This record gives sequence, C-alpha cells and structure tokens, in this order.
Amino acid sequence: MSHGDVDPELEMTSPHWMHREAESCPRMHTIWRLERWRSSMLLLIGLALCVLRAPGCSATDTDIALDAKATLNHRIQSLDLLVFVFLLALTVLTIWLFKHHRVSWLHETGLAVIYGLIVGAIIRYAGTSATLVHMQVEPQGVPTYSDKLPPDTLWFRYPVNQTNSTKLPEGIKTYAYVFRGQVHDVDENEIDLKATFDPEVFFNIILPPIIFYAGYSLKKKYFFRNLGAILTFAIVGTTLSAFLIGGFMYGCVKLMPNYLSSSFSFLDTLYFGALISPTDPLTILAIFNDLRVDVNLYALVLGESVLNDAVAIVLSGAIQNYGEHYSDTGEFETTAFLRSLSDFFSIFLLSLMIGAAMGCLTALMTKFTRVRDFPLLESALFVLMSYSTFLLAEATELTGVVAVLFCGICQAHYTYNNLSEDSRQRTKQIFELLNFLAENFIFSYIGVSMFTFPKHHFDAGFIITAFICAAIGRAVNVYPLSWLLNIRRKPKISSNFQHMLFFAGLRGAMSFALAIRNTVSDARQTMLTATSLIVIFTVVIQGGAANFLLNWLKIPVGVDDETEQLNNYQVHSSDGYLQDVEGGGVGRGKVRLSGGTDSNLDTSVDGPNGSLGGASSGRRRNSHEKAILARIWGNFDTKYMKPLLTHSRPTLLETLPVCCNPIARLLTTTQQLTQDGSEFRRVDSDSDICIDNDTGNGLSQDATGAVPGSGVGVGRRNSLSRVSIKYTADNHHLLASYRNIE
Amino acid sequence: MSHGDVDPELEMTSPHWMHREAESCPRMHTIWRLERWRSSMLLLIGLALCVLRAPGCSATDTDIALDAKATLNHRIQSLDLLVFVFLLALTVLTIWLFKHHRVSWLHETGLAVIYGLIVGAIIRYAGTSATLVHMQVEPQGVPTYSDKLPPDTLWFRYPVNQTNSTKLPEGIKTYAYVFRGQVHDVDENEIDLKATFDPEVFFNIILPPIIFYAGYSLKKKYFFRNLGAILTFAIVGTTLSAFLIGGFMYGCVKLMPNYLSSSFSFLDTLYFGALISPTDPLTILAIFNDLRVDVNLYALVLGESVLNDAVAIVLSGAIQNYGEHYSDTGEFETTAFLRSLSDFFSIFLLSLMIGAAMGCLTALMTKFTRVRDFPLLESALFVLMSYSTFLLAEATELTGVVAVLFCGICQAHYTYNNLSEDSRQRTKQIFELLNFLAENFIFSYIGVSMFTFPKHHFDAGFIITAFICAAIGRAVNVYPLSWLLNIRRKPKISSNFQHMLFFAGLRGAMSFALAIRNTVSDARQTMLTATSLIVIFTVVIQGGAANFLLNWLKIPVGVDDETEQLNNYQVHSSDGYLQDVEGGGVGRGKVRLSGGTDSNLDTSVDGPNGSLGGASSGRRRNSHEKAILARIWGNFDTKYMKPLLTHSRPTLLETLPVCCNPIARLLTTTQQLTQDGSEFRRVDSDSDICIDNDTGNGLSQDATGAVPGSGVGVGRRNSLSRVSIKYTADNHHLLASYRNIE
Repeated sequence: MSHGDVDPELEMTSPHWMHREAESCPRMHTIWRLERWRSSMLLLIGLALCVLRAPGCSATDTDIALDAKATLNHRIQSLDLLVFVFLLALTVLTIWLFKHHRVSWLHETGLAVIYGLIVGAIIRYAGTSATLVHMQVEPQGVPTYSDKLPPDTLWFRYPVNQTNSTKLPEGIKTYAYVFRGQVHDVDENEIDLKATFDPEVFFNIILPPIIFYAGYSLKKKYFFRNLGAILTFAIVGTTLSAFLIGGFMYGCVKLMPNYLSSSFSFLDTLYFGALISPTDPLTILAIFNDLRVDVNLYALVLGESVLNDAVAIVLSGAIQNYGEHYSDTGEFETTAFLRSLSDFFSIFLLSLMIGAAMGCLTALMTKFTRVRDFPLLESALFVLMSYSTFLLAEATELTGVVAVLFCGICQAHYTYNNLSEDSRQRTKQIFELLNFLAENFIFSYIGVSMFTFPKHHFDAGFIITAFICAAIGRAVNVYPLSWLLNIRRKPKISSNFQHMLFFAGLRGAMSFALAIRNTVSDARQTMLTATSLIVIFTVVIQGGAANFLLNWLKIPVGVDDETEQLNNYQVHSSDGYLQDVEGGGVGRGKVRLSGGTDSNLDTSVDGPNGSLGGASSGRRRNSHEKAILARIWGNFDTKYMKPLLTHSRPTLLETLPVCCNPIARLLTTTQQLTQDGSEFRRVDSDSDICIDNDTGNGLSQDATGAVPGSGVGVGRRNSLSRVSIKYTADNHHLLASYRNIE
Repeated sequence: MSHGDVDPELEMTSPHWMHREAESCPRMHTIWRLERWRSSMLLLIGLALCVLRAPGCSATDTDIALDAKATLNHRIQSLDLLVFVFLLALTVLTIWLFKHHRVSWLHETGLAVIYGLIVGAIIRYAGTSATLVHMQVEPQGVPTYSDKLPPDTLWFRYPVNQTNSTKLPEGIKTYAYVFRGQVHDVDENEIDLKATFDPEVFFNIILPPIIFYAGYSLKKKYFFRNLGAILTFAIVGTTLSAFLIGGFMYGCVKLMPNYLSSSFSFLDTLYFGALISPTDPLTILAIFNDLRVDVNLYALVLGESVLNDAVAIVLSGAIQNYGEHYSDTGEFETTAFLRSLSDFFSIFLLSLMIGAAMGCLTALMTKFTRVRDFPLLESALFVLMSYSTFLLAEATELTGVVAVLFCGICQAHYTYNNLSEDSRQRTKQIFELLNFLAENFIFSYIGVSMFTFPKHHFDAGFIITAFICAAIGRAVNVYPLSWLLNIRRKPKISSNFQHMLFFAGLRGAMSFALAIRNTVSDARQTMLTATSLIVIFTVVIQGGAANFLLNWLKIPVGVDDETEQLNNYQVHSSDGYLQDVEGGGVGRGKVRLSGGTDSNLDTSVDGPNGSLGGASSGRRRNSHEKAILARIWGNFDTKYMKPLLTHSRPTLLETLPVCCNPIARLLTTTQQLTQDGSEFRRVDSDSDICIDNDTGNGLSQDATGAVPGSGVGVGRRNSLSRVSIKYTADNHHLLASYRNIE
C-alpha cells in the first residue's frame, strides 16, 4: 500500500539506506537515534510476509524513495500507536488479575505507569538509529524581509537523481516545507520528538472525555452538600498553593549554585506552582470506591480534584499570558497583574457559562423533541452537543476543558432526566469507557515518555525541591483551610480526614499535560522532568499506600450509601424540599406519598459516626449564612430551571406568575402535565438534592434527622434509597456504572 | 490562552494584519482565499468577550506574532470542526423529524450530503480572504546534493523585527520547516487545503469503525446462507466491473478532443474503475431495515457491499503499486501484472488472516480469563484488541480496513458469546454510535468538500461518461453473474431481485475516500470530482427512489424475521446440525430437548414466498456441490473452533480424538463442562447456522423443511425463534440494535 501524498503530520525519519549519503553531505546535520527495536519488530513481521509477496520497489527514483519513506513513516507511526494499544491491553488484563486476586497495594493507574516505564526503557535501550537530515537554507536572490513573520512555506528546488526512470523528464523539482517552529539550539544535536505525541493531543483529545466524565458522573448529592468546602479547597486552595509553591521554588532555585538560577524566572516557578497544584482523583477514588469510604470524604476529594483541574488550567493560562503579552519586563507590574487576574476570572466564568449554556441547550433539545424515540439519534445528539461545547470554547479562546466540565454537570443534572433509558445507559457507558481508556493512556504515556521524550532535563536539586514544595503546597491547601472551614462547618472535618485529604493529593494527568505543553526552555524541561517524577511517585507510592493509611487513620470504610444517608445529619431528601415548596403552594401530595409507601422498608442502622455526629444546635444558625447561595440556587433550580429543562414537576405553570401562563404553557410538555408524582420521582431519582433547608417547615425535617433510627426519619430517608434500589435492580448489570451518579 | 509551540499539523493562515506587508514583498507568492465567514463568526463571538476581557497583546515582536498566529490557527481549526459537529447535530435533529413524520423519500445519508452541500456553498461564497506566504529558498553556500532524498527539515535564518521587546537580545532566529510534499505547479496560485482534512484521516479514523461495525453486526445466518452469491458478486463482480469501467473509460477519454486524453493513462482509468465499483450499504439498507424487506435480498446487498469495499481497497492498492513500482513504462507488462496480481491476493488473504487471528485471540482472552466479571475492563479489552488489529495490519503494510472487517466478523462469531451481558450491549452500542457518527460525517464532508476542496476539476464529458460507465459496470456485475448463479442456485435470484440489486448499487464512503486519497494530477482531480458527483447523485436520488422501486418491483416487504424462518426452505437450525453431530457420537440429548420444549409455541404461518419457494428436488443435488466448502467449514467450526474459542458445547473433550484428551481438558473451561444444554443454546442464540446439511441424517431435516407448517417443522424452527424472542424481551430497549445481529 503506498501513500501518494506525504502526510504532513508524519515526522520524518530516514530509513537505513540513507546513512552513508547523509554523512557525505557536509551541510547536513545528521542526528542518530536509537530505534533498532522498531526496525527489528518491523523486520520480524515483514519477514513472514516477504515469503509470500513479490519483492518490492526498485528505489532509484526520488519519487519512489519519497513514497517508500512515507510508507515507512506510516508503518512506524502505526507501530508506535500499536505499542501503546498493546500496553493498554496488557494493563487491562493485569488489572483484572489484580482485582481477581484482590491485590490492593497497586492500582490500575500505578500499573499503567509502571508498564509504561518498562516499555519506555525497552524502547530507549534496545533501539537502533535513524536520521533526520537538516539543511540550512537562505532566500533565493537578495533577501527582503518586510514582514513581521517568517513565511508559512518554503519552496525548495531540488535536483532529482534520475537513474532509470523515464516518467519524469524535468531534472528539478520544487518541494514545499511548512513552518514548524523555532530551532532553539542550532549547535546542539537537537533530537526531534519521536514515539511522542504532540502535546496538544492531550488537550484536544485525551483530557476532554476525562473531564466531561468527571462532570457527568459527579455524585451531585454529596457534591452540593459539601459545595462550600469544595469551592474553598479548589479555588482558594489551588491558587494559594500555586503562589506559595511558585514563591518557595523561586527562592530555592535562586539559592542553587548552578545555571538553573539564571534560567528560571519567577513566572516560570509560578507556572510550575500552578501546574503542580491540581490533584488527580483517579487512583485514590478507585480505592475509595472499592472500600466504600465515607461519602463526605469521597465528595471532598472528588469535588476538589475535579474543580482544581479547571482552576489550574485557567490559572496557568493567565500566568502565561502575563509573561507573554502583558508584562514587558517579566517583573511585577500592577496593570499586567490586574489584567491577568481579570483574564483568570473572565475566562473561568465565560467558559463555565458556555458549558452550562450548551448543557441547557441539549436539555431543551431533548425535552421538546421526541428524539428519545430513537435512542441512537438521541445518543448521537448528546455526544455531538457535548463535543461542540469543547470546540466552541476553544474557538472563542476560552478554555474547552472548563466548559466541558460544566457542560457535563449540566448534562447530568438536566439532560440525563430527559433521555430514554437506552441513551442513559449508552452515554454513561461510552463516556465511562472513553474515560478509562484516556486515563490509562495518559498514565502509560507518562511512563513511556520518561525514557523516550527527548526534552527531559534531570536536575536532582530541582527535583528534590519540587517534591518538598509539592508536599508543602498540599499541606497549605488542606490544613489551614480545613481549620478555617471548621470554624463554621458542622460536621467538622476531623484531623484524620485532613490527613487523608493531604495524602490524597496525587498529581496526575492535568499536571503532566500542562508540563509537556511547553518545553522550549531549559527551565520548562526541568519542570517537565520534575512533574513526571512527582506524578509517577504519587500515583505509584501514595496510591499504593492509600489503603494502609485509611486503616491507620481509622477512616470509616465499608460505608453503605444507604446507611450513610441515615447517619449523615445533613442529608435532605427531595421530599424535604418538596415540603418547602408545598409551603409555597406547589407540589401537592408528594410528601404523603413518599412518607407512606416506603416507611415499612428497613435497613441496618449504624450509630452516628464520631467525627460527623456533631451537635445540631450550632449548625442551624450557621447554615443560614453559609448556604444562602446554595439555597437560593436550589430554589431557583427546582422552581424554574428543572421545569423548563426537564419533564419534572412542578411545572412552570405552577411556579411562574399567572401573567406568564401562555409562555409557561408553551414551555411545558404534555408529558410533564400528565405524569403522576411517582413517575416523576423515579425519573428524577438520580438527580441531586442540594438545599440546606433549615427554613420554613424544613424544621420538622431537621428534627427527624437528629433522631436517627426513628420511624419517620428512616421512612423518609429510605424513600430515596428505595427508588434507587428499584432502579438499580432493573439494571443490575449496570450497577457499577450507576454507582457514581446515584 | 496561548499555545507555546506551534502545532505542526496546523495549516498556516496569515491573519488580516499581514495583507499589506505580504504585497510589498516581491519574492513572496501571496495567495488570497475566501474566508470572511470564519473571521466574521470569530468576530461575533469574540465581540461579546472583549467587553469583559482586557485588551490583548501588543503584537510587535515576531514571537508574539507567531504565538498569535498559532492561537488563531487553533481557533480556526476548532471552528472548522465545530461547523461539522453542528452540521451533524442538525442532521440528527432533521433525521428525527423525518422519521417522526415518516418521510421516506429522503434518508439520513442523503440529508447529510444535502446539508453538507449547503454549508459548503455558504463557506465558499460568503468567505473572506487569507494569505499563505511562500518563499523560494536555496541552500546556504555551495549546494551539494549527494542524497536521493530532499532533506527532512530546512533551517531558515530569519532576522527578527524588534521594536519594543527586551527579552530576546539576538536579531536572528532559526526556524525549522518540515517536508510537506511536492509543489506540482509552481506558477499556478496553488490553493492549500483548507477546511479540508488530510485524506489519510478517512483511512485511519473514519473508515475503521464503519467497516468493523459492518463485520460485527453482519446478519451471519443469512450471510453464510448466501455466501456463494455474495462472494461471486463481491470478488468476481467487483474485479470485472473495475476492469470493464477502466477499459471503457479509457476508450472514451481517448476519444475526447480535449487535454484529458493526454493526462489519463490506462492505469488512471483502471484506478477509477476500482474506486467506483464498490457499493455502499448504508442508505439502501436503512430503507430495507425500515421496510423489513426480504432477508435474502438484504443479505445479498449487505454482504456484497461489505466485501466489495475490502476488495476495492486492495485492488486499488495493487493497481497503484503496479504503476509506481512494478511497471517502468506504464504499459502492460506480464511480470508487473503478475506481481500486482500476487499482491492483490496475498494482501487480501494476509489481511484476512491477521484480522481473523486477532479476533480469535480476543476470544481466547475472554474465554480463559474471568475478565467478564468486570465489564468495563472487558469492553476496554475488546475495543483495544479490535483497534490493534487495524494498527497491526497497517504496520505490516497490509490493509487495515480488510483486517478490521474480518476481525469484526470473528468477534461477533466467537468473542461475542464469551462476553458478559453488559459488554455485549456496550460494545454493540459503542460501535453502532461510532459507525453512525463516522458515516454521517463522511457524507457531510462529501457535500462540504464539493465546494471547499480546492482540487476539484470539473469536466462535463468525463463526468457524463463516468456516470454511464458506473451504471454499465454495475449492470455487468449484477445481471450476467446472477444468470450464472441461477444455473445452480435454488432459490433463483428473480429478475425483480436483480433489478433491485442493480439499483441498490449506491456509491459511498469507500469510493470517495479512495478518490480523495491522491489528487496530485489533473486526471486524479477529475476523477475525484466525478466520484463526488456520482456519490451525491446515487445517495440522494437513488436512495430516495429506492422506496418507490421496491413497490414497483413488487419486492416483498414487511417480512417478519420469524415468518421468514418458517418460509425459507433453506433454514437449518442448530438443532439440525446437532443431529448431524449426534450421528457422529456427540451432542447427546439436544434434539429431544429442543423438539420437546418448544413445539407448543406457534406463530403465524404464511404461505411460501413465490420467488423463493422453488422445488426442493433440484436443490438437494446441487447443494452437495455448491456448499461443500461451507459444510466442511461449518463442521470444523462447530467441532473445533467454537469449543476452543467459546464456552459452547460440544467441548473439545468430545470432538478431539482420545489421545488429545489432556490438551482438550486444558482448553475446556469448567463453565463449558458444567453448563446444561439450554444455557448453551441461549448463549449461542445469536450465532450463525451456516451449514447446508443435506448429508447424513440431515435428510430427515430436509423432509420436515419441505412441509412448512407441519408440527415438527414448526417446532424445530421455532425453537430458535423462541430463544431469540426471550432474548430480546429481556433487553427490549436494545431491540433495535440487536436486529442486525439476531
């Protein structure tokens, strides 16, 4: 199979038969690279085929040589990808083996990293050489540079060797060369990126499904309940940690005797602080999930790590903008700083809004069309709209990753309720799989790239400092903020939980992606190496030790979702909210229904957990203050957003003022009007309850909550669990995937 | 958000502020292109953001200009992709609308094409201009060309304008340019590919899921029953059609008075013949599916179009190899021809073997591990193994598309039976969705590219000839081969069926992908234009008219799969086969079980269909001859392959000679030994029955088959239907997706 057009994406590698000629050419910089492994693999595979197939090209013509080269490049590219795919398959099989034998000291991401390291080492040390031929050129005739930019394309006239071809009469051919980037060190034997991917691949292909799935599968109930703490940790904590690490690193680097002190600017270390601050949920949450750890701890760790990824990417963008556009000197300038600050907030908020808007648009589409009659079309629409959110944000110079996160949250919150059963399963399963593959790919790649990525720059001093700073940054994020939160928070975050939060600060995909994005300077290369090592260390060692630490810190594990709902004093079911709404004149008959039908259901009732079972007296006061935003939003959401975007009750006819009735009727579907309460409840069963309702007749709710195990309390709480149990029983084979959303 | 490294994949577009300078530079070729639409869209979106955001870069430095350019390119790329994603979303919504209102004269692919055309026209005529700056360069100093190949990278020293930057002291920077390809017409204002994708994207990203899904969802039962006809049409027919079209086109082109006659070689027209011969199943099968058309016709159309894609891609590769490597003159040479022929067969067979081997490997993996306990891991493994098949074939210079097709068939035949229920659903749904998105994308793109692809070359004479030749080629494929097949075939392919087969020869994705792969010469560009038009015409017009034609030709529609099984005299259930095996000493008790438990089940029994209800006398004789290969294979499959690769009974312990018992025990799972017959039957219910068993005690089977409606016959047939009904009832929401496999 030959490839007529040379693929511009292919990186050029000269095959073996070029070595001799390359050396004899004085103006060409020849670079040798270890690539024997690939050649030998190709040889082995090819050998079997050669027996059957006719001997190939008689490569004497430049055209044919180019064609052969393009084919070889395609094969090498396929082989590179094949290595990663096999690596993933191997990881999958080993994960199964580990799960099967209940090995808990190494988790799947750790495994992926370790396999990656092994394969990377093999590629590096068992490799053979290949060449890249460079040639210095200058403009034809007298050069005139009247443009700010170098030309997009160079046209290079090249005399073609013609030994036996009669097809091409002319002796000179013109070849086009497209702009690639700056050569930073002309003298150095710069090794080109090989067996490596374009860093932008991580941002445009690998990260979006991971982040979307994080939003789509967010345990909304517990997430919103801990929203205050999560936002504090994610936004304040991450920013604080970034600046602290940045400052501390800058001081340390300047104290170092070597050349590093000159190559690092404060912006560089600040960038490092921003990229090393976000935590990765993956490994730790896999363990939490397996052990069914305390749900509040779970929500804190998950929520924080989801949001701080978004914060970190915007923060690092703002820092980069500060350095490149706003600041002339690289030193502190007030206007430049303010510009970056406004960048940070505006990009974050606008991305959030675009994501939320696209999510709501999808909800409207699925509500007002009967596209759910054709689940395939519905799923396709869902996927397309979610992906277009990312593209839209990127096209408007916002941050696609942030947009996709909030799109995911909206899709789960609204659209999911409108989907057909088939589409719910399908979208969950697809994104679950995509997420799994993308995550394992990125961790494998982190391992492989430790050996194959040519721009690593090892500096022991920097790496040790980076490890210490990363730990300090995490500590500053967790302990002071927990103390601050505990002033007003009931239940308090116990010190054991704080230790676990500190320890759960693994670094992962986002840190690596941000580090590998820009590796032009020595400073950036050193940062990449340090980041890779921190990621590998935290994922493999911390991830492996998490299990033991959970034991050691006596964190409650094996907590049933159901039991937890009884124990947790802050749970407020949708019934509770509907009581509120009833107080406002809507939602008739809901409470009686739920209280009556489910009170005979019973579960094992554990005693309240020590750290969580605080006094309920202080809490009533402070939740008034703390949760006012959440309460207003929850009210607005249930009254206007959900009736508008989903088929839920109460309808807009009931919640909007009478004068708006015509519009309300237009925005209310027949299904919404005709369905009975029980159906609504089931449809809505996996959506969240995010209201801290100590107001109105929420008081009675509170009272029952304070007496765990009392008949009414159990009944009311379990009404929710019951629905979810029935729900999962219908789809027992999907239990695993539903865990995260329910 | 700025992008530090310039992405090499981005095509370079100069922003507005470059126009003036570009013109003032005498050595730069400036090309203007319509792109106002993009800029205005960006402007509109950007405007809203500008209010909130601080004014951007003070672009005076080359670095900043390059950065801004990279960012702009990223935005334009995102926007291009966004256009396609929105187009797909729009298509999805319109398809729903059409399905909802039961519009049958336009199908989804036709719709995608039409929307694509509209958007393409808008892009073309509402566009604005952008520039690509070229510069002619020559080697620094005295050029020495001792190499066969042009250098991989050019290093270009460029003086940087520095007005206000103090960060970069040096005035000269070196930029790297990577090899792109040959410039074919230096004088022509060659427009670079924009709003277009690399043709290799089609082969490496879009086609594989489509082809894999075709294999994975093949209605195997009917496929194998019509295997002879399908293979004849696909292999003999496609090759015949390719050579006929090639020859005829060559004659016509040579008669044309214009320049075309000189630019076309016979190989070019032959290549055109190969690329226009494969038919596309999509539109027509969607209609067939909706109308539940006769299953044999369905199987013929589907099977042929699936296989002839594979044949065409290998054939076109062989033709290209002939031209590029084997033949020196471009004229007919016996050795070169034989080489190409051996290429054709060896590549096809080796690709087939790699695909089948990887499918079997996956089956073994899923059989001998308990990875099915973790459906997510299982699905991931399945996807990874399937994708690695494609990569493996590409890395060994075989045809990935062919490998992936046969991998899909093996996965459905063996692996599917080992998968957990969750993974079955998930893999089906995922590939169904991928297939849907990929197909609609390619058809949208065909529409858009009619206007935006810069290398179209309209030539009315060639296009008209191409239309006529395509029709003739199809006719030659269908009618003579049907006549030939009808000599021995019972039931015969009726003339109405032949007309429908002729008419169902829509051209689609594969033709377009092959045509757009290589557009270097005038001849190839003319072929691309003709192919695009043929695809658009056949998909929109023929696809739309299929419904009416089905009526007009009185082809039976609304045929129930179940009823069909009763009517069709050639159906042989697995029970029938097991009787055969029982004759050989295995499969004890199976027949009694199936005959006994299900005979009380009844269905509506229609009279035998006219065209299919042939006399059973002639058929017994000829199926001996015709189906001998299928019979041997079916025997081997049930005796050795299925017991080895799946959990099916009989086990290898029963089928292998006694001396092999230790090995057989090793290859037989406990599950295989402990399960009872009924479980086996259910697990295996969606697999095929491909044996024409007129031998042994299959005679009794035949006798009952010849008396439709008799108790035994109905009972035995329905035992299959029963299983499938129970099966689908369990998964009622998946009915649609299961239709294709069951």
